[in-house]
Parts: sequence; structure tokens; C-alpha cells
Amino acid sequence: MPIGDYSEFKINLLDQAAPLRASIRSGAHTGTTSGLAPSLVQGNVVILPADWAADFLMYCQSNPVALPLIAVSEPGNPALPDLGHDLDIRTDIPEYQVFRDGERAETVTDIRDLWQGDFVTFVLGCSFSFEDALTRAGLSIRNVEQQANVSMYRSNIATRPAGRFHGNMVVSMRPFIAADAIRAIQVTTRLPKAHGAPVHMGDPRLIGINDISAPDFGDPVTVKDDELPLFWACGVTPQVALENARPPIAITHVPGKMLLTERLNEELAVL
Amino acid sequence: MPIGDYSEFKINLLDQAAPLRASIRSGAHTGTTSGLAPSLVQGNVVILPADWAADFLMYCQSNPVALPLIAVSEPGNPALPDLGHDLDIRTDIPEYQVFRDGERAETVTDIRDLWQGDFVTFVLGCSFSFEDALTRAGLSIRNVEQQANVSMYRSNIATRPAGRFHGNMVVSMRPFIAADAIRAIQVTTRLPKAHGAPVHMGDPRLIGINDISAPDFGDPVTVKDDELPLFWACGVTPQVALENARPPIAITHVPGKMLLTERLNEELAVL
Repeated sequence: MPIGDYSEFKINLLDQAAPLRASIRSGAHTGTTSGLAPSLVQGNVVILPADWAADFLMYCQSNPVALPLIAVSEPGNPALPDLGHDLDIRTDIPEYQVFRDGERAETVTDIRDLWQGDFVTFVLGCSFSFEDALTRAGLSIRNVEQQANVSMYRSNIATRPAGRFHGNMVVSMRPFIAADAIRAIQVTTRLPKAHGAPVHMGDPRLIGINDISAPDFGDPVTVKDDELPLFWACGVTPQVALENARPPIAITHVPGKMLLTERLNEELAVL
Repeated sequence: MPIGDYSEFKINLLDQAAPLRASIRSGAHTGTTSGLAPSLVQGNVVILPADWAADFLMYCQSNPVALPLIAVSEPGNPALPDLGHDLDIRTDIPEYQVFRDGERAETVTDIRDLWQGDFVTFVLGCSFSFEDALTRAGLSIRNVEQQANVSMYRSNIATRPAGRFHGNMVVSMRPFIAADAIRAIQVTTRLPKAHGAPVHMGDPRLIGINDISAPDFGDPVTVKDDELPLFWACGVTPQVALENARPPIAITHVPGKMLLTERLNEELAVL
């Protein structure tokens, strides 16, 4: 292997992830994917009928920080060959959230029975990619320390509407002391396809969050007196837009239970 | 001129700066250089006898954020050809601070009478370079808005000692709303030779600053309720180390009255 050829390194990573992928596909693993196969890109997923797809594509285009698009499927085709050689979006997420007319309906671990010939799948980058980068930079992530899901909040930051999609941004929060916060901004700036740099830090009330100990999604984590909370745009944002747009049917992942791909986080980095 | 050849652009900038350089050399301009010739690198200056130079060089090497070295002269030679084709360090600073045995003694506008055959000049990058970058990024800098000198404070952040030099870091402060603060961290990260990213943000007491309205150097500026103060390492740090090391003689610039060079700020950028 020539110096600088990391193809074997990548194959090893995929081999390590293969049992997890199989376990998700079989329905054995239905929990969070946080911290699992940390070098590999995980994705937020939105599945919509084709007549909603153009609006949603424009919504992603208009809000690249909250909705960083990394793949779109062919209509009716459950494959996403750019993200995984045999990926099947109908089976490869631990748990799915079904929306009916904008309301959260059932959750399921397999959507083969729900699949429609006009479904289009959108995959968006996820903060788990930058959590990996932060960990490699030597930073400690509170929700990982506390073995909790990340804290997520409905902010008052409006997204740019597109077609029938609109709504406020959902943000995820991680607290750091100032020096680590500065480093975290640098590290996440490299990963615009995983939400990039934070959208806010410091006083949560300035973005409409009145009680940081009561997240709207995920779990609360400790914020110490000498720490600043940093807020990143979150891939749950499109779920708020689905609530507003009210398509007859839409399917997403359950927050924290992501699509595991065969792409390296480092492939998403701009620097 | 081929596309991409900016040599003429640079020559124009130097031509524009020439009257200012002449005015400083003649002693007509003795004020701050803040906001003047903003595309050109300005430098913090420390002049020491040769038998103190090795310690100071090691002190710079050990503290590259506070003391980002961009040029060192030959002993006894007042020229700095890497920074300006006819630069003479004895005349080209608006006002000099003389230190005797570590005490601030007289200030002068010309050091030809004080020059010694063993003097070595050290030039360190300056935050004015990143103020230019911040302005080009569309950010408004409070001390520029208020036509004041930047606020500088003695922090409790220890530098790494080297030889006879030691002391705490002096920091400069600029307040921003969170979104602009995040952008400011990104922009200044590109300029490690101009102190790079901030060393702290948020609560000033965490770095030993008890009253943000009473800077140790420079002028106070307004910090609004919805703003975070950002603190950068400052080129006044070596002046504190001179107070501690107590060389028989040392000469620096007066804070805010910098050495104007012929290098572009963009030449210092790493990205």
C-alpha cells in the first residue's frame, strides 16, 4: 500500500460497521446511533411524495445550515448508492417517525409496508459527524459524558420559507468553557455539511429559549457556571417544517436514530 | 497585467501609505495608527540589547499567540528589509516607550540618540491586521465605531516563561452579538500571525478581569446587554514581561502607535 493510501483503513471501518448495519436492518438494533461507528457519516432523513419534493429541495437549498443536503434519491427508488453500496432506506434506520397531515403518527422499525412508488428520500448531514470531529480534537461533549441524547430546542430563529415549507429552526446545545468553545467553533466550521459552526452561543433567551433545562427534544444536560452553551442548527428542523406544511404522509428518522452511511466524516470536511 | 496579478494593486497601496510613512518618520504624525493604511501589516515592536535577545526569542517561540514573531533584525542594524524596503526602526514609529530597569521611563518620537550597536529589534503581529479582516467581513468593531483605542486588560492567564521573561497575558477586548462573535472567531483564526482566534469570551472574571469598564491600557468601550466580550491575546504582553525581566534598557512602541510595514495583511493569512 503506497504511503497516503487510506483505502484499506476505510475498508476496515466499513467492516467494523457492517454488523451494526445488519443489526439495524434486521430490526434488532432500534436505539440511538449516537457514538456508534463514529468515523462514518450519519444522516437525518426526510421521505416525501414526489409532488412535495421540489418544494422540499428548495427549502434545503434556502437553508443550508439547518438542512445540509448530502443525497437525494430517485423517485420510488429506496437505494442511495452515493451513501452506501447496498443501502435500503426502507429498512436501514433504527426507528422511523411517520407524519400524517403534519401530525406525528406511528413510529415503526421498517417502512416496506408504507413505501410508495413516488417516495423521494432526502438525507441531510448530522451533528454526530461534528461530535466525532470535536472528540478527535480532544473536547469532551457533555451529552456523550452523561450518556444522554443531545438537548434540542425550538428556537425563534426563522428559516427561509420555500413553497409550503416554513418554520423556526431547531437547535442542538452543547456547553463548553470558553477556550473549548472557541476550538469547537473552529472544528465545526470545517464541516458545513454537518451544520457547520454554531448559530448562537451564550444567553439562550436571545433565541427564544427560556428554560435551557427543559429541551423540546432529547435530554437535559448539565451546564456549569463557567461554561457557555453553544447552539448549532439541528436536523430536526425539517420535522417542524413538516408539521407546518402538513403533507398527507411523510417519514423521518426518530431524533437520534440516524441513517448510518458508508461515507467518512472527513469526506464532508472543507479544510 | 495578467489576470490574478495583483502587484499593481499592492504598489498602489504602498503609494497611498507613503505619505503616512513619511509623516511618521519626520515626527509630524505622533498619534495612533489605528485605521490607517488598513490593508498593511502593523507591528508591535520590542528592542533589546543583544544579550537579552536569545531569552526574548525563546519567549516569543514559547508564546506564539501573544507574541507572534514576524521579523527579527541583525544586531545593531536598524533596517528590517523583510518588512519595508527602506524601513528604519529608529524613526518609523510614531511614539516610543523607553523602559529602564523594567520601569516605564520617557516616551520619544525618535530613538536615533538612544540607539546602541547591540540593539536587536523584534516585530510581532498586531490585532490591527485582524481588525481589517473583521471590517472586510462586514463586522463593526466597537473601538473603531467609538473612535477609541481598543480596551486592553492584564489577565490572569500566565504566559510560558523563557529565560528572564515571564508574566501574565495582556488581552484586548471587542464585544459582538453571538452570530458576529462566531464569525469573528472564524475570521481571526485565519490570522495566527496577528494573534489568531480569541483566547477567551464571555465572563471576564474567569480570566481575572473584575471591571470590564476599567481597562488597564487603552480606552473603555460600551458592551451591550446582548453582546459577548471577546478577548484576544495582545502585543502589549511583552511590555509586562519587560517589567518583570527588568533589562537595563528596552524600547517598545507606545500601545496603539505601531510600526507600519509594507506587507499585506493577506500575506499573513493561513487560509
